[in-house]
Amino acid sequence: MSEKILKVALVGGTHGNELTGVRLVEQIQRSKDVPKHSFELKTLLANNLAIKADRRYLEKDLNRCFTQEQLNSPQDESLENKRAKEIRAFLGARNSTQAQDLIIDVHNTTANMQACMIFGALDEFMKAFLAHLVNKTPEVHLYYMPEIDRDNSPYLPSLAKRDLCVEMGPQAHGTLRGDLYELTQDLVKSAFQFINEWNTDQIDHTPQKVTVFEHLYNIDYPRNESGEITAYIHPDLQFKDYQEITKGSPLFRTFEGEDIFWEKEESVWPVFINEHAYYEKGLAMSLTIKKEMLF
Amino acid sequence: MSEKILKVALVGGTHGNELTGVRLVEQIQRSKDVPKHSFELKTLLANNLAIKADRRYLEKDLNRCFTQEQLNSPQDESLENKRAKEIRAFLGARNSTQAQDLIIDVHNTTANMQACMIFGALDEFMKAFLAHLVNKTPEVHLYYMPEIDRDNSPYLPSLAKRDLCVEMGPQAHGTLRGDLYELTQDLVKSAFQFINEWNTDQIDHTPQKVTVFEHLYNIDYPRNESGEITAYIHPDLQFKDYQEITKGSPLFRTFEGEDIFWEKEESVWPVFINEHAYYEKGLAMSLTIKKEMLF
Repeated sequence: MSEKILKVALVGGTHGNELTGVRLVEQIQRSKDVPKHSFELKTLLANNLAIKADRRYLEKDLNRCFTQEQLNSPQDESLENKRAKEIRAFLGARNSTQAQDLIIDVHNTTANMQACMIFGALDEFMKAFLAHLVNKTPEVHLYYMPEIDRDNSPYLPSLAKRDLCVEMGPQAHGTLRGDLYELTQDLVKSAFQFINEWNTDQIDHTPQKVTVFEHLYNIDYPRNESGEITAYIHPDLQFKDYQEITKGSPLFRTFEGEDIFWEKEESVWPVFINEHAYYEKGLAMSLTIKKEMLF
Repeated sequence: MSEKILKVALVGGTHGNELTGVRLVEQIQRSKDVPKHSFELKTLLANNLAIKADRRYLEKDLNRCFTQEQLNSPQDESLENKRAKEIRAFLGARNSTQAQDLIIDVHNTTANMQACMIFGALDEFMKAFLAHLVNKTPEVHLYYMPEIDRDNSPYLPSLAKRDLCVEMGPQAHGTLRGDLYELTQDLVKSAFQFINEWNTDQIDHTPQKVTVFEHLYNIDYPRNESGEITAYIHPDLQFKDYQEITKGSPLFRTFEGEDIFWEKEESVWPVFINEHAYYEKGLAMSLTIKKEMLF
Protein backbone atom coordinates (compact mmCIF):
# COMPACT_ATOMS: atom_id res chain seq x y z
CA MET A 1 0.00 0.00 0.00
CA SER A 2 1.35 3.41 -1.01
CA GLU A 3 2.05 6.21 1.43
CA LYS A 4 -0.93 8.49 1.76
CA ILE A 5 -0.82 12.26 1.25
CA LEU A 6 -2.51 13.54 4.38
CA LYS A 7 -1.11 17.04 4.75
CA VAL A 8 -1.18 19.41 1.81
CA ALA A 9 -0.40 23.14 1.67
CA LEU A 10 -1.33 25.50 -1.15
CA VAL A 11 0.84 28.61 -1.15
CA GLY A 12 0.50 31.88 -3.07
CA GLY A 13 2.40 35.15 -2.89
CA THR A 14 5.83 33.72 -2.13
CA HIS A 15 6.62 36.59 -4.50
CA GLY A 16 4.25 39.41 -3.64
CA ASN A 17 3.55 40.65 -7.18
CA GLU A 18 2.72 37.25 -8.67
CA LEU A 19 -1.02 37.54 -8.43
CA THR A 20 -2.34 34.19 -9.68
CA GLY A 21 -1.44 32.39 -6.46
CA VAL A 22 -2.36 35.37 -4.30
CA ARG A 23 -5.87 35.67 -5.73
CA LEU A 24 -6.39 31.90 -5.74
CA VAL A 25 -5.44 31.48 -2.08
CA GLU A 26 -7.51 34.55 -1.09
CA GLN A 27 -10.50 33.10 -2.90
CA ILE A 28 -10.16 29.69 -1.21
CA GLN A 29 -9.76 31.35 2.20
CA ARG A 30 -12.88 33.47 1.56
CA SER A 31 -15.00 30.63 0.24
CA LYS A 32 -17.77 29.29 2.47
CA ASP A 33 -18.30 26.28 0.24
CA VAL A 34 -15.38 24.15 1.49
CA PRO A 35 -15.04 20.79 -0.27
CA LYS A 36 -14.33 17.67 1.79
CA HIS A 37 -10.90 16.22 1.15
CA SER A 38 -9.12 13.07 2.30
CA PHE A 39 -6.28 15.32 3.48
CA GLU A 40 -5.82 18.36 5.69
CA LEU A 41 -5.43 21.48 3.52
CA LYS A 42 -3.51 24.52 4.69
CA THR A 43 -3.47 27.68 2.60
CA LEU A 44 -0.91 30.45 2.95
CA LEU A 45 -0.19 33.91 1.56
CA ALA A 46 3.54 33.62 2.02
CA ASN A 47 5.12 37.07 1.68
CA ASN A 48 2.23 39.03 3.16
CA LEU A 49 4.17 42.32 3.37
CA ALA A 50 5.39 42.12 -0.24
CA ILE A 51 1.83 41.37 -1.42
CA LYS A 52 0.62 44.61 0.19
CA ALA A 53 3.50 46.51 -1.43
CA ASP A 54 2.97 44.90 -4.91
CA ARG A 55 6.64 43.93 -4.88
CA ARG A 56 8.45 40.64 -5.41
CA TYR A 57 9.98 41.05 -1.95
CA LEU A 58 10.87 43.84 0.42
CA GLU A 59 14.43 43.11 1.53
CA LYS A 60 15.34 39.67 0.20
CA ASP A 61 13.77 37.06 -2.06
CA LEU A 62 11.67 34.96 0.37
CA ASN A 63 12.06 31.97 -1.92
CA ARG A 64 15.79 31.93 -1.13
CA CYS A 65 15.38 31.93 2.66
CA PHE A 66 14.65 28.27 3.43
CA THR A 67 18.10 26.72 3.83
CA GLN A 68 18.58 25.06 7.22
CA GLU A 69 21.35 27.53 7.95
CA GLN A 70 19.08 30.56 7.51
CA LEU A 71 16.15 28.90 9.27
CA ASN A 72 18.34 27.98 12.26
CA SER A 73 20.18 31.28 12.48
CA PRO A 74 19.38 33.07 15.76
CA GLN A 75 19.40 36.37 13.90
CA ASP A 76 17.25 37.55 10.99
CA GLU A 77 19.11 39.54 8.43
CA SER A 78 15.89 40.57 6.67
CA LEU A 79 12.11 40.76 7.05
CA GLU A 80 11.95 37.76 4.74
CA ASN A 81 14.26 35.67 6.94
CA LYS A 82 11.89 36.38 9.82
CA ARG A 83 8.88 35.47 7.70
CA ALA A 84 10.54 32.20 6.63
CA LYS A 85 10.67 31.12 10.28
CA GLU A 86 6.99 31.99 10.78
CA ILE A 87 6.18 29.92 7.70
CA ARG A 88 8.21 27.00 9.00
CA ALA A 89 6.24 27.17 12.26
CA PHE A 90 2.96 27.16 10.32
CA LEU A 91 3.80 24.47 7.76
CA GLY A 92 6.00 22.26 9.93
CA ALA A 93 9.77 22.01 10.06
CA ARG A 94 11.64 20.07 7.40
CA ASN A 95 11.95 16.35 8.26
CA SER A 96 9.69 16.74 11.31
CA THR A 97 6.47 14.79 11.89
CA GLN A 98 4.64 18.10 11.32
CA ALA A 99 6.10 18.49 7.82
CA GLN A 100 3.62 18.65 4.95
CA ASP A 101 3.35 15.65 2.65
CA LEU A 102 3.09 18.06 -0.28
CA ILE A 103 3.44 21.82 -0.79
CA ILE A 104 2.12 23.36 -4.01
CA ASP A 105 3.58 26.85 -4.48
CA VAL A 106 1.98 28.96 -7.22
CA HIS A 107 4.17 31.48 -9.07
CA ASN A 108 4.01 33.63 -12.20
CA THR A 109 6.55 34.44 -14.85
CA THR A 110 6.74 36.92 -17.70
CA ALA A 111 8.12 34.06 -19.83
CA ASN A 112 5.79 31.97 -21.96
CA MET A 113 5.93 28.98 -19.63
CA GLN A 114 2.19 28.27 -19.84
CA ALA A 115 1.57 25.89 -16.91
CA CYS A 116 5.01 24.71 -15.80
CA MET A 117 5.34 22.13 -13.05
CA ILE A 118 8.80 22.36 -11.48
CA PHE A 119 9.78 19.44 -9.30
CA GLY A 120 12.92 17.96 -7.79
CA ALA A 121 12.35 14.90 -5.61
CA LEU A 122 10.51 12.04 -7.31
CA ASP A 123 8.73 9.14 -5.66
CA GLU A 124 5.87 6.88 -6.65
CA PHE A 125 3.24 9.48 -5.76
CA MET A 126 4.96 12.36 -7.56
CA LYS A 127 5.39 10.32 -10.73
CA ALA A 128 1.75 9.32 -10.86
CA PHE A 129 0.64 12.86 -9.89
CA LEU A 130 2.72 14.62 -12.55
CA ALA A 131 1.78 12.10 -15.23
CA HIS A 132 -1.86 12.77 -14.38
CA LEU A 133 -1.46 16.55 -14.65
CA VAL A 134 0.43 16.48 -17.93
CA ASN A 135 -2.00 14.02 -19.51
CA LYS A 136 -5.06 15.95 -18.43
CA THR A 137 -4.07 19.49 -19.47
CA PRO A 138 -2.33 20.42 -22.72
CA GLU A 139 -0.77 23.60 -21.23
CA VAL A 140 1.11 21.58 -18.59
CA HIS A 141 4.87 21.07 -19.06
CA LEU A 142 7.16 19.20 -16.69
CA TYR A 143 10.43 20.88 -15.65
CA TYR A 144 12.73 18.60 -13.71
CA MET A 145 15.42 20.16 -11.51
CA PRO A 146 17.13 17.13 -9.96
CA GLU A 147 17.54 17.79 -6.28
CA ILE A 148 21.02 17.70 -4.82
CA ASP A 149 20.60 18.53 -1.15
CA ARG A 150 17.09 19.14 0.09
CA ASP A 151 18.17 20.46 3.51
CA ASN A 152 20.13 23.21 1.82
CA SER A 153 17.42 24.07 -0.66
CA PRO A 154 16.50 27.75 -0.37
CA TYR A 155 12.98 27.24 -1.74
CA LEU A 156 9.85 27.44 0.39
CA PRO A 157 8.19 24.20 -0.75
CA SER A 158 11.32 22.19 0.10
CA LEU A 159 10.02 22.34 3.69
CA ALA A 160 7.67 19.52 2.71
CA LYS A 161 8.32 15.88 1.89
CA ARG A 162 7.29 16.57 -1.69
CA ASP A 163 7.15 19.88 -3.50
CA LEU A 164 5.64 21.27 -6.62
CA CYS A 165 6.32 24.77 -7.90
CA VAL A 166 3.70 25.87 -10.42
CA GLU A 167 4.87 28.64 -12.78
CA MET A 168 2.09 30.27 -14.80
CA GLY A 169 2.90 32.62 -17.65
CA PRO A 170 3.31 34.82 -19.52
CA GLN A 171 1.86 37.32 -17.08
CA ALA A 172 3.20 40.77 -16.21
CA HIS A 173 3.94 40.89 -12.50
CA GLY A 174 1.34 42.85 -10.57
CA THR A 175 -1.42 42.00 -13.06
CA LEU A 176 -3.85 39.12 -13.28
CA ARG A 177 -4.75 37.37 -16.54
CA GLY A 178 -8.15 35.73 -16.31
CA ASP A 179 -7.31 32.80 -18.55
CA LEU A 180 -4.22 31.85 -16.52
CA TYR A 181 -6.10 32.31 -13.26
CA GLU A 182 -8.89 29.99 -14.37
CA LEU A 183 -6.40 27.45 -15.72
CA THR A 184 -4.65 27.45 -12.33
CA GLN A 185 -7.98 27.00 -10.54
CA ASP A 186 -8.69 23.98 -12.72
CA LEU A 187 -5.21 22.55 -12.14
CA VAL A 188 -5.48 22.87 -8.37
CA LYS A 189 -8.93 21.29 -8.40
CA SER A 190 -7.60 18.46 -10.52
CA ALA A 191 -4.59 18.04 -8.20
CA PHE A 192 -6.80 17.80 -5.11
CA GLN A 193 -9.06 15.29 -6.83
CA PHE A 194 -6.06 13.17 -7.78
CA ILE A 195 -4.79 13.19 -4.17
CA ASN A 196 -8.23 12.09 -2.97
CA GLU A 197 -8.19 9.22 -5.43
CA TRP A 198 -4.62 8.33 -4.49
CA ASN A 199 -5.53 8.24 -0.80
CA THR A 200 -8.48 5.94 -1.48
CA ASP A 201 -6.52 3.60 -3.74
CA GLN A 202 -8.43 4.53 -6.88
CA ILE A 203 -5.32 5.23 -8.96
CA ASP A 204 -4.25 2.61 -11.46
CA HIS A 205 -0.59 3.44 -11.56
CA THR A 206 0.74 1.80 -14.68
CA PRO A 207 4.07 3.48 -15.47
CA GLN A 208 3.87 5.67 -18.56
CA LYS A 209 6.18 7.72 -20.69
CA VAL A 210 6.09 11.48 -20.17
CA THR A 211 8.01 14.34 -21.78
CA VAL A 212 10.24 16.13 -19.30
CA PHE A 213 12.45 19.22 -19.67
CA GLU A 214 15.46 18.54 -17.47
CA HIS A 215 17.47 21.51 -16.23
CA LEU A 216 21.00 21.89 -17.62
CA TYR A 217 22.23 25.36 -16.68
CA ASN A 218 21.32 29.06 -16.85
CA ILE A 219 22.75 31.63 -19.21
CA ASP A 220 23.03 35.36 -18.61
CA TYR A 221 22.59 38.29 -20.97
CA PRO A 222 25.72 39.51 -22.73
CA ARG A 223 27.15 42.31 -20.58
CA ASN A 224 29.90 44.91 -20.89
CA GLU A 225 32.78 45.44 -18.45
CA SER A 226 30.55 47.52 -16.17
CA GLY A 227 28.06 44.66 -15.99
CA GLU A 228 25.44 46.44 -18.10
CA ILE A 229 23.30 44.30 -20.40
CA THR A 230 24.37 44.85 -24.02
CA ALA A 231 21.79 42.73 -25.86
CA TYR A 232 18.19 41.62 -25.71
CA ILE A 233 16.47 38.30 -26.30
CA HIS A 234 16.40 37.80 -30.04
CA PRO A 235 12.91 38.57 -31.41
CA ASP A 236 12.82 35.08 -32.98
CA LEU A 237 13.36 33.48 -29.56
CA GLN A 238 10.98 35.61 -27.48
CA PHE A 239 8.04 33.54 -26.12
CA LYS A 240 9.54 30.34 -27.63
CA ASP A 241 9.98 28.53 -24.31
CA TYR A 242 10.25 24.71 -24.60
CA GLN A 243 11.21 24.92 -28.28
CA GLU A 244 14.38 23.33 -29.56
CA ILE A 245 17.33 25.51 -30.50
CA THR A 246 19.96 23.99 -32.72
CA LYS A 247 23.41 25.15 -33.73
CA GLY A 248 23.07 28.53 -35.45
CA SER A 249 19.74 29.49 -33.81
CA PRO A 250 19.70 33.14 -32.69
CA LEU A 251 19.77 33.79 -28.92
CA PHE A 252 20.36 37.52 -28.53
CA ARG A 253 20.65 40.70 -30.57
CA THR A 254 23.00 43.41 -29.30
CA PHE A 255 21.92 47.05 -29.16
CA GLU A 256 24.42 47.55 -31.99
CA GLY A 257 22.30 45.17 -34.10
CA GLU A 258 24.58 42.12 -34.07
CA ASP A 259 23.02 38.68 -33.65
CA ILE A 260 24.44 36.13 -31.22
CA PHE A 261 23.82 32.49 -32.00
CA TRP A 262 23.78 29.13 -30.22
CA GLU A 263 27.16 27.71 -31.22
CA LYS A 264 27.15 24.21 -29.76
CA GLU A 265 26.39 21.05 -31.69
CA GLU A 266 23.88 19.78 -29.12
CA SER A 267 20.32 21.02 -29.13
CA VAL A 268 18.86 22.64 -26.02
CA TRP A 269 15.34 23.70 -25.05
CA PRO A 270 15.33 27.12 -23.31
CA VAL A 271 12.78 28.06 -20.64
CA PHE A 272 12.20 31.17 -18.51
CA ILE A 273 13.12 33.30 -21.52
CA ASN A 274 12.98 36.99 -20.52
CA GLU A 275 11.64 36.50 -16.98
CA HIS A 276 11.57 39.91 -15.33
CA ALA A 277 12.82 38.91 -11.89
CA TYR A 278 15.82 37.12 -13.33
CA TYR A 279 17.40 40.26 -14.83
CA GLU A 280 18.81 41.00 -11.37
CA LYS A 281 19.82 37.38 -10.91
CA GLY A 282 21.92 37.37 -14.10
CA LEU A 283 19.69 34.93 -15.91
CA ALA A 284 18.40 35.49 -19.45
CA MET A 285 17.05 31.95 -19.79
CA SER A 286 17.49 28.45 -18.43
CA LEU A 287 18.58 25.69 -20.77
CA THR A 288 17.05 22.25 -20.55
CA ILE A 289 17.20 18.97 -22.38
CA LYS A 290 13.95 17.43 -23.53
CA LYS A 291 13.66 13.76 -22.70
CA GLU A 292 11.20 10.96 -22.21
CA MET A 293 10.97 9.52 -18.71
CA LEU A 294 8.95 6.64 -17.32
CA PHE A 295 6.64 8.02 -14.62
CA MET B 1 4.91 78.74 -45.01
CA SER B 2 4.39 76.36 -42.11
CA GLU B 3 6.09 76.70 -38.76
CA LYS B 4 9.26 74.68 -38.62
CA ILE B 5 10.05 72.08 -35.95
CA LEU B 6 13.51 73.14 -34.83
CA LYS B 7 13.76 71.77 -31.31
CA VAL B 8 12.86 68.15 -30.66
CA ALA B 9 13.35 66.07 -27.49
CA LEU B 10 13.19 62.29 -27.28
CA VAL B 11 12.48 61.11 -23.75
CA GLY B 12 12.67 57.63 -22.21
CA GLY B 13 12.35 56.41 -18.65
CA THR B 14 9.72 58.86 -17.49
CA HIS B 15 8.65 55.66 -15.77
CA GLY B 16 11.83 53.88 -14.70
CA ASN B 17 10.74 50.31 -15.43
CA GLU B 18 9.49 50.97 -18.97
CA LEU B 19 12.58 49.82 -20.79
CA THR B 20 11.84 50.47 -24.46
CA GLY B 21 12.42 54.21 -24.15
CA VAL B 22 15.27 53.77 -21.67
CA ARG B 23 17.25 51.45 -23.94
CA LEU B 24 16.46 53.51 -27.03
CA VAL B 25 17.67 56.77 -25.50
CA GLU B 26 20.76 55.07 -24.04
CA GLN B 27 21.59 53.65 -27.46
CA ILE B 28 21.22 57.04 -29.20
CA GLN B 29 23.34 58.71 -26.52
CA ARG B 30 26.04 56.03 -26.94
CA SER B 31 26.03 56.06 -30.72
CA LYS B 32 28.97 57.66 -32.49
CA ASP B 33 27.17 57.62 -35.81
CA VAL B 34 24.99 60.73 -35.29
CA PRO B 35 22.71 61.51 -38.23
CA LYS B 36 22.36 65.12 -39.40
CA HIS B 37 18.93 66.57 -38.77
CA SER B 38 17.26 69.83 -39.68
CA PHE B 39 16.43 70.26 -35.98
CA GLU B 40 18.27 70.23 -32.66
CA LEU B 41 17.72 66.88 -30.91
CA LYS B 42 17.85 66.53 -27.14
CA THR B 43 17.63 63.12 -25.53
CA LEU B 44 16.72 62.51 -21.90
CA LEU B 45 16.45 59.65 -19.42
CA ALA B 46 13.77 61.30 -17.36
CA ASN B 47 13.44 59.50 -14.03
CA ASN B 48 17.10 58.54 -13.68
CA LEU B 49 16.74 57.34 -10.07
CA ALA B 50 13.72 55.15 -10.81
CA ILE B 51 15.54 53.63 -13.82
CA LYS B 52 18.38 52.52 -11.50
CA ALA B 53 15.85 51.06 -9.07
CA ASP B 54 13.78 49.28 -11.80
CA ARG B 55 10.68 51.03 -10.44
CA ARG B 56 7.99 53.14 -12.05
CA TYR B 57 8.91 55.92 -9.64
CA LEU B 58 10.42 56.30 -6.21
CA GLU B 59 8.12 58.65 -4.35
CA LYS B 60 5.61 60.01 -6.86
CA ASP B 61 4.72 59.38 -10.50
CA LEU B 62 7.04 61.79 -12.37
CA ASN B 63 4.50 61.99 -15.19
CA ARG B 64 2.10 63.75 -12.82
CA CYS B 65 4.56 66.45 -11.70
CA PHE B 66 4.42 68.97 -14.55
CA THR B 67 1.52 71.24 -13.61
CA GLN B 68 2.53 74.90 -13.35
CA GLU B 69 1.60 74.81 -9.68
CA GLN B 70 4.03 72.01 -8.87
CA LEU B 71 6.76 73.40 -11.12
CA ASN B 72 6.47 76.84 -9.50
CA SER B 73 6.21 75.61 -5.93
CA PRO B 74 9.23 76.74 -3.87
CA GLN B 75 9.20 73.38 -2.11
CA ASP B 76 9.57 69.87 -3.50
CA GLU B 77 7.30 67.36 -1.88
CA SER B 78 9.10 64.44 -3.56
CA LEU B 79 12.27 63.44 -5.42
CA GLU B 80 10.17 63.45 -8.57
CA ASN B 81 8.99 67.03 -8.02
CA LYS B 82 12.63 68.04 -7.79
CA ARG B 83 13.48 66.08 -10.94
CA ALA B 84 10.59 67.73 -12.81
CA LYS B 85 12.20 71.12 -12.22
CA GLU B 86 15.57 69.86 -13.49
CA ILE B 87 13.81 68.55 -16.58
CA ARG B 88 12.09 71.87 -17.13
CA ALA B 89 15.48 73.59 -16.94
CA PHE B 90 16.89 71.14 -19.51
CA LEU B 91 13.97 71.09 -21.95
CA GLY B 92 12.83 74.69 -21.53
CA ALA B 93 9.95 76.10 -19.55
CA ARG B 94 6.42 75.86 -20.91
CA ASN B 95 5.51 78.81 -23.17
CA SER B 96 9.10 80.14 -23.05
CA THR B 97 11.27 80.73 -26.11
CA GLN B 98 13.38 77.78 -24.91
CA ALA B 99 10.40 75.40 -25.06
CA GLN B 100 10.74 72.41 -27.38
CA ASP B 101 8.71 72.41 -30.57
CA LEU B 102 8.00 68.71 -30.00
CA ILE B 103 8.61 66.21 -27.19
CA ILE B 104 8.28 62.51 -27.95
CA ASP B 105 7.97 60.53 -24.71
CA VAL B 106 8.30 56.73 -25.04
CA HIS B 107 6.36 54.55 -22.60
CA ASN B 108 5.39 50.90 -22.22
CA THR B 109 2.20 49.23 -21.12
CA THR B 110 1.21 45.70 -20.19
CA ALA B 111 -1.94 46.24 -22.31
CA ASN B 112 -2.00 45.18 -25.94
CA MET B 113 -1.70 48.74 -27.24
CA GLN B 114 0.82 47.86 -29.97
CA ALA B 115 2.21 51.26 -31.03
CA CYS B 116 -0.15 53.82 -29.57
CA MET B 117 0.33 57.52 -30.31
CA ILE B 118 -1.35 59.61 -27.60
CA PHE B 119 -1.80 63.27 -28.43
CA GLY B 120 -3.77 66.25 -27.21
CA ALA B 121 -3.09 69.49 -29.02
CA LEU B 122 -3.51 69.37 -32.79
CA ASP B 123 -2.11 71.76 -35.35
CA GLU B 124 -1.18 71.51 -39.00
CA PHE B 125 2.13 69.80 -38.23
CA MET B 126 0.71 67.27 -35.77
CA LYS B 127 -2.06 66.28 -38.19
CA ALA B 128 0.35 65.64 -41.03
CA PHE B 129 2.85 63.94 -38.70
CA LEU B 130 0.30 61.54 -37.16
CA ALA B 131 -1.28 60.76 -40.53
CA HIS B 132 2.19 59.89 -41.79
CA LEU B 133 2.91 57.54 -38.85
CA VAL B 134 -0.42 55.74 -39.02
CA ASN B 135 -0.21 55.28 -42.79
CA LYS B 136 3.34 53.98 -42.69
CA THR B 137 3.09 51.41 -39.88
CA PRO B 138 0.21 48.97 -39.38
CA GLU B 139 0.84 48.69 -35.59
CA VAL B 140 0.28 52.43 -35.08
CA HIS B 141 -3.02 53.52 -33.52
CA LEU B 142 -4.01 57.10 -32.74
CA TYR B 143 -5.41 57.89 -29.29
CA TYR B 144 -6.79 61.40 -28.99
CA MET B 145 -7.11 62.93 -25.52
CA PRO B 146 -8.48 66.40 -26.24
CA GLU B 147 -6.54 68.87 -24.18
CA ILE B 148 -8.40 71.09 -21.77
CA ASP B 149 -5.75 73.19 -20.06
CA ARG B 150 -2.16 72.68 -21.14
CA ASP B 151 -0.67 74.77 -18.32
CA ASN B 152 -2.26 72.46 -15.78
CA SER B 153 -1.32 69.28 -17.58
CA PRO B 154 0.70 67.02 -15.25
CA TYR B 155 2.45 65.22 -18.12
CA LEU B 156 6.12 65.73 -18.99
CA PRO B 157 5.73 66.28 -22.74
CA SER B 158 3.19 69.07 -22.14
CA LEU B 159 6.27 71.26 -21.48
CA ALA B 160 6.65 71.47 -25.25
CA LYS B 161 4.57 73.24 -27.86
CA ARG B 162 3.52 69.83 -29.23
CA ASP B 163 3.63 66.49 -27.50
CA LEU B 164 3.46 62.89 -28.44
CA CYS B 165 3.31 60.07 -25.93
CA VAL B 166 4.22 56.73 -27.51
CA GLU B 167 2.86 53.69 -25.62
CA MET B 168 4.35 50.37 -26.72
CA GLY B 169 2.83 47.10 -25.54
CA PRO B 170 2.16 44.53 -24.33
CA GLN B 171 5.43 44.41 -22.43
CA ALA B 172 5.94 43.42 -18.80
CA HIS B 173 7.52 46.33 -16.95
CA GLY B 174 11.21 45.79 -16.27
CA THR B 175 11.64 43.60 -19.35
CA LEU B 176 12.47 44.41 -22.96
CA ARG B 177 10.78 42.75 -25.93
CA GLY B 178 13.02 42.85 -28.98
CA ASP B 179 10.20 43.18 -31.49
CA LEU B 180 8.69 46.20 -29.73
CA TYR B 181 12.12 47.78 -29.27
CA GLU B 182 12.90 47.48 -32.98
CA LEU B 183 9.45 48.75 -33.94
CA THR B 184 10.03 51.81 -31.74
CA GLN B 185 13.45 52.38 -33.30
CA ASP B 186 11.82 52.34 -36.74
CA LEU B 187 9.05 54.68 -35.62
CA VAL B 188 11.48 57.22 -34.18
CA LYS B 189 13.62 57.07 -37.31
CA SER B 190 10.53 57.58 -39.42
CA ALA B 191 9.40 60.47 -37.20
CA PHE B 192 12.75 62.25 -37.52
CA GLN B 193 12.74 61.75 -41.28
CA PHE B 194 9.25 63.24 -41.49
CA ILE B 195 10.32 66.28 -39.45
CA ASN B 196 13.29 66.79 -41.78
CA GLU B 197 10.98 66.67 -44.78
CA TRP B 198 8.51 69.00 -43.06
CA ASN B 199 11.25 71.52 -42.33
CA THR B 200 12.41 71.46 -45.95
CA ASP B 201 8.90 71.77 -47.39
CA GLN B 202 8.89 68.31 -48.91
CA ILE B 203 5.56 67.31 -47.38
CA ASP B 204 2.51 67.35 -49.60
CA HIS B 205 -0.07 67.92 -46.95
CA THR B 206 -3.36 66.99 -48.55
CA PRO B 207 -5.83 66.42 -45.70
CA GLN B 208 -6.72 62.76 -45.32
CA LYS B 209 -9.09 60.67 -43.27
CA VAL B 210 -7.54 58.78 -40.35
CA THR B 211 -9.04 56.49 -37.71
CA VAL B 212 -8.79 57.94 -34.23
CA PHE B 213 -9.74 56.51 -30.83
CA GLU B 214 -11.02 59.48 -28.84
CA HIS B 215 -10.93 59.26 -25.06
CA LEU B 216 -14.30 59.10 -23.30
CA TYR B 217 -13.65 58.11 -19.68
CA ASN B 218 -11.90 55.51 -17.51
CA ILE B 219 -13.54 52.66 -15.64
CA ASP B 220 -12.25 50.98 -12.50
CA TYR B 221 -12.34 47.34 -11.42
CA PRO B 222 -15.38 46.29 -9.39
CA ARG B 223 -14.40 46.67 -5.71
CA ASN B 224 -15.87 45.74 -2.34
CA GLU B 225 -16.54 48.12 0.55
CA SER B 226 -12.90 47.89 1.65
CA GLY B 227 -11.75 48.94 -1.80
CA GLU B 228 -10.41 45.50 -2.74
CA ILE B 229 -10.73 44.42 -6.35
CA THR B 230 -13.43 41.74 -6.65
CA ALA B 231 -13.14 40.83 -10.34
CA TYR B 232 -10.64 40.50 -13.14
CA ILE B 233 -10.67 41.51 -16.78
CA HIS B 234 -12.90 38.99 -18.55
CA PRO B 235 -10.76 36.46 -20.43
CA ASP B 236 -12.66 37.33 -23.64
CA LEU B 237 -11.62 40.98 -23.30
CA GLN B 238 -7.95 40.52 -22.30
CA PHE B 239 -5.58 41.87 -25.00
CA LYS B 240 -8.57 43.10 -27.08
CA ASP B 241 -7.61 46.77 -26.99
CA TYR B 242 -9.15 48.94 -29.77
CA GLN B 243 -11.90 46.35 -30.40
CA GLU B 244 -15.54 47.33 -30.26
CA ILE B 245 -17.64 46.24 -27.32
CA THR B 246 -21.37 46.31 -27.77
CA LYS B 247 -24.25 45.94 -25.32
CA GLY B 248 -23.90 42.53 -23.62
CA SER B 249 -20.14 42.15 -24.19
CA PRO B 250 -18.36 40.82 -21.09
CA LEU B 251 -16.08 43.25 -19.21
CA PHE B 252 -15.15 41.50 -15.97
CA ARG B 253 -15.55 38.19 -14.18
CA THR B 254 -15.80 38.25 -10.39
CA PHE B 255 -13.78 35.86 -8.23
CA GLU B 256 -17.13 34.23 -7.48
CA GLY B 257 -17.44 33.43 -11.19
CA GLU B 258 -20.09 35.96 -12.17
CA ASP B 259 -19.73 37.83 -15.46
CA ILE B 260 -20.23 41.60 -15.67
CA PHE B 261 -21.32 42.99 -19.02
CA TRP B 262 -21.32 46.28 -20.89
CA GLU B 263 -24.90 47.41 -20.40
CA LYS B 264 -25.15 50.58 -22.47
CA GLU B 265 -26.63 50.79 -25.95
CA GLU B 266 -23.64 52.68 -27.37
CA SER B 267 -20.54 50.83 -28.47
CA VAL B 268 -17.18 51.75 -26.97
CA TRP B 269 -13.59 50.75 -27.82
CA PRO B 270 -11.55 50.00 -24.66
CA VAL B 271 -7.81 50.64 -24.44
CA PHE B 272 -5.22 50.21 -21.66
CA ILE B 273 -6.96 46.98 -20.66
CA ASN B 274 -5.15 45.49 -17.63
CA GLU B 275 -2.27 47.98 -17.49
CA HIS B 276 -0.24 47.17 -14.38
CA ALA B 277 0.45 50.69 -13.20
CA TYR B 278 -3.21 51.61 -13.36
CA TYR B 279 -4.31 49.11 -10.67
CA GLU B 280 -3.21 51.68 -8.07
CA LYS B 281 -4.84 54.50 -10.03
CA GLY B 282 -8.24 52.77 -10.00
CA LEU B 283 -8.32 52.20 -13.72
CA ALA B 284 -9.15 48.84 -15.31
CA MET B 285 -9.39 50.27 -18.82
CA SER B 286 -10.05 53.52 -20.68
CA LEU B 287 -13.05 53.74 -22.97
CA THR B 288 -12.82 55.47 -26.31
CA ILE B 289 -14.99 56.11 -29.31
CA LYS B 290 -13.62 55.18 -32.70
CA LYS B 291 -14.07 57.89 -35.29
CA GLU B 292 -12.77 59.17 -38.58
CA MET B 293 -11.06 62.54 -38.51
CA LEU B 294 -9.63 64.67 -41.28
CA PHE B 295 -5.91 65.14 -40.59
